[in-house]
Amino acid sequence: MSTIKFLRSSTHNALRSSLGWCRLAASRPRYDYDLVVLGGGSAGLACAKEAAGCGARVLCFDYVKPTPVGTKWGIGGTCVNVGCIPKKLMHQASLLGEAVHEAVAYGWNVDDTNIRPDWRKLVRSVQNHIKSVNWVTRVDLRDKKVEYVNSMATFRDSHTIEYVAMPGAEHRQVTSEYVVVAVGGRPRYPDIPGAVELGITSDDIFSYEREPGRTLVVGAGYVGLECACFLKGLGYEPTVMVRSIVLRGFDRQMSELLAAMMTERGIPFLGTTIPKAVERQADGRLLVRYRNTTTQMDGSDVFDTVLWAIGRKGLIEDLNLDAAGVKTHDDKIVVDAAEATSVPHIFAVGDIIYGRPELTPVAILSGRLLARRLFAGSTQLMDYADVATTVFTPLEYSCVGMSEETAIELRGADNIEVFHGYYKPTEFFIPQKSVRHCYLKAVAEVSGDQKILGLHYIGPVAGEVIQGFAAALKTGLTVKTLLNTVGIHPTTAEEFTRLSITKRSGRDPTPASCCS
Amino acid sequence: MSTIKFLRSSTHNALRSSLGWCRLAASRPRYDYDLVVLGGGSAGLACAKEAAGCGARVLCFDYVKPTPVGTKWGIGGTCVNVGCIPKKLMHQASLLGEAVHEAVAYGWNVDDTNIRPDWRKLVRSVQNHIKSVNWVTRVDLRDKKVEYVNSMATFRDSHTIEYVAMPGAEHRQVTSEYVVVAVGGRPRYPDIPGAVELGITSDDIFSYEREPGRTLVVGAGYVGLECACFLKGLGYEPTVMVRSIVLRGFDRQMSELLAAMMTERGIPFLGTTIPKAVERQADGRLLVRYRNTTTQMDGSDVFDTVLWAIGRKGLIEDLNLDAAGVKTHDDKIVVDAAEATSVPHIFAVGDIIYGRPELTPVAILSGRLLARRLFAGSTQLMDYADVATTVFTPLEYSCVGMSEETAIELRGADNIEVFHGYYKPTEFFIPQKSVRHCYLKAVAEVSGDQKILGLHYIGPVAGEVIQGFAAALKTGLTVKTLLNTVGIHPTTAEEFTRLSITKRSGRDPTPASCCS
Repeated sequence: MSTIKFLRSSTHNALRSSLGWCRLAASRPRYDYDLVVLGGGSAGLACAKEAAGCGARVLCFDYVKPTPVGTKWGIGGTCVNVGCIPKKLMHQASLLGEAVHEAVAYGWNVDDTNIRPDWRKLVRSVQNHIKSVNWVTRVDLRDKKVEYVNSMATFRDSHTIEYVAMPGAEHRQVTSEYVVVAVGGRPRYPDIPGAVELGITSDDIFSYEREPGRTLVVGAGYVGLECACFLKGLGYEPTVMVRSIVLRGFDRQMSELLAAMMTERGIPFLGTTIPKAVERQADGRLLVRYRNTTTQMDGSDVFDTVLWAIGRKGLIEDLNLDAAGVKTHDDKIVVDAAEATSVPHIFAVGDIIYGRPELTPVAILSGRLLARRLFAGSTQLMDYADVATTVFTPLEYSCVGMSEETAIELRGADNIEVFHGYYKPTEFFIPQKSVRHCYLKAVAEVSGDQKILGLHYIGPVAGEVIQGFAAALKTGLTVKTLLNTVGIHPTTAEEFTRLSITKRSGRDPTPASCCS
Repeated sequence: MSTIKFLRSSTHNALRSSLGWCRLAASRPRYDYDLVVLGGGSAGLACAKEAAGCGARVLCFDYVKPTPVGTKWGIGGTCVNVGCIPKKLMHQASLLGEAVHEAVAYGWNVDDTNIRPDWRKLVRSVQNHIKSVNWVTRVDLRDKKVEYVNSMATFRDSHTIEYVAMPGAEHRQVTSEYVVVAVGGRPRYPDIPGAVELGITSDDIFSYEREPGRTLVVGAGYVGLECACFLKGLGYEPTVMVRSIVLRGFDRQMSELLAAMMTERGIPFLGTTIPKAVERQADGRLLVRYRNTTTQMDGSDVFDTVLWAIGRKGLIEDLNLDAAGVKTHDDKIVVDAAEATSVPHIFAVGDIIYGRPELTPVAILSGRLLARRLFAGSTQLMDYADVATTVFTPLEYSCVGMSEETAIELRGADNIEVFHGYYKPTEFFIPQKSVRHCYLKAVAEVSGDQKILGLHYIGPVAGEVIQGFAAALKTGLTVKTLLNTVGIHPTTAEEFTRLSITKRSGRDPTPASCCS
């Protein structure tokens, strides 16, 4: 509260101007807080800190229910604890194993025969990093004067939040003018015997004590593919079970190419297959029974680990949303363009909202913009269009804007032009890495300067490559400008500036010359 | 000639339409060729192939004078043989040595004590790749019906080129309507005793038979810094001698940061120092005498290798340009916006032209556009503005657009706003890599939507990061749009979307939180 008092002092105006866009929260004795945020993940924290920076009195609740096998974690949400961060570190670990072999090809006197990672050391390193981020996050909240309570919180009414400060203690209540729901989501489990007792999810794998060994990854969304790929890169034997298609929602051609890349790297796919049951064998391993829905044939196989990656659900159950009158759809909260729920002073951001991309930077930016609208007089809405994303497989896939299918559907096949090409990263030659799946394409309007509708890239460091192009797309990039942009040589990103072959031309999109 | 004949046949119109923008060269019996290109590097080859694709009769000369120590190479020019390509491969080799140590930190059971590269194996691998590119280049020329002669060619008059087909043979002559000079440049040697006899340059290092050992790199332009860095990464002991400043022409703050990064990695700089003489000692090593121009103190040190990286000169000497009437400035050819020299039917592209960036993709694009103007009715000029470039040091530096100094000079300090920040790549935590020099900035207009004038980035895979932003800059990127571009998490490129701190604010540009 000291900040608030300070802000109300005579230095008010000086501070006000130094804070720039920040408007000071007026005194509102009617409620305990100006803002209560439910959920201390990327969205909630960004919103809470921004609101406090504007002078609002902010309280943030965060609570993590342990997984069925008992995994739990600290503040920061999915991204920091069981998502992007540990995933990227495991991905990096897997790439570094590959790099050791490449180093030998380049002439380093390293013995790369039978190299293996120390899974426990890796998990410990990853967890240590996460712990340090948890700590920094708490310090950051304290510095920014956001109050934090590590408790499950539920609505009592639309302005009142109820919680238990510590197990066994009495219920407490706080009131707030505004409430932001940012509780996020958790992985789903299939409704089959043994699923919950014997399977794990991405919530568990990054702190898993024992080596995963032969692993069945059920689900071929980006989480499933990423887990399968880092496990393969770390020397384990993943198999991917796919109910229908790989990477639903992504460009089909790119998704199939990515699956082909994984197959080439020795990751088998069980296509059109659904799990039926998981049983613990006498030797401790897991017998998985499944059915191929195309052939209607039943099958089974034995694994050391079964990892469910069949999707995520919003954590609305424990919020008592009915008491507040907040409307939901399936397990998500319905919001308008200003992230307001059916109750005007209750908002939702992050993975809990219906029909928006479940991505950390989306969560952060929308949380921050919401706080500015609530407490700094801003009117800026979150722009959910053309959000870039990356699948962190060993050749990564990144894209921004429309898939080819979406462009055809929305604009008509005659009105779009697709430029595409295979390419050969310079660094791949000496270690003779496969270039078969290094491919990129631009989906554009067919007429005028050919405004670009979508960009797609499979190759090294795809996220780093696409980020700038995402900014370009938002600025209105055209094919004309793209092809007049001078490349940076030798990079793989420069291949976008060399996209001269259209699909319509039927010309061979494989590269001929280098450097001329 | 068969292509030309074919193009003049009855399928003329069908071909014409299938070639799209190509205009057929009319019959011009006055000259042996429609186009003679002097120089088979990136610019010359791109121009020659594009012209032939338009139906022009094209002849391309390429000839490489051996270096003082006898290094020579095949078709393709600097980039392929002694520039970008081998440099990037050596850079990659050096990064892979670092990756071996990182792999250990991530838990791989690799013995990384005293690892060393096999220099000869690396050189052989690099040279094998170059040879394969040389071969692909020759096949490509044959496929595209470009005639190629491996001879030094000189002007006899403005339409006549003279050459000797093979040593000892008689001089031959060919005539051409247009001539494109694309002979490029070669490294300079200082005018001091021993320089030419005992030193080498970037023309030699990538095929150097013996290990470089303790190496004095004279010159702190990008070539010098890149060579010093890959030598250091490969376990040798480079020292960089700097006459005045590091990376002249680049942003000063970024250049100093890059030099600090190199110093931290154990590369010493001899500042404000010029070489005076190189002598061979009795033990075969090289004694270098030098003078510090600030202190006026003389000094000397002993090295295994001395590498001159003091700049490059244009190869105009052997062209007999006077006979053609082509005007030069210093050792370069002066051209107008259409790359025409003082003689309207003689053009120049690539590193030989005065006052333009010496970069492969610039050379390729300008060569290609020139061919289209000459033979396909195009009017499009090369746009030399906002050309991105990258310095391939271990943390790379890439930039596009204006340096901070240039922006201040052209717009005035009051009219620009610089957004900046240090950042911590996620992957750096586990191996505890220094993040001290991971930094980026955006130089923008101060008013309105804050149009971005320049972007600068030091960190991993800088070229891949900046390429898309270069396209964005050409499209008119503003700070407003940049900050509304959703990041790709976790990448380093996303840091550009988080640039919230201005230099003017005086706020601390070091990062606090992660992922919120």
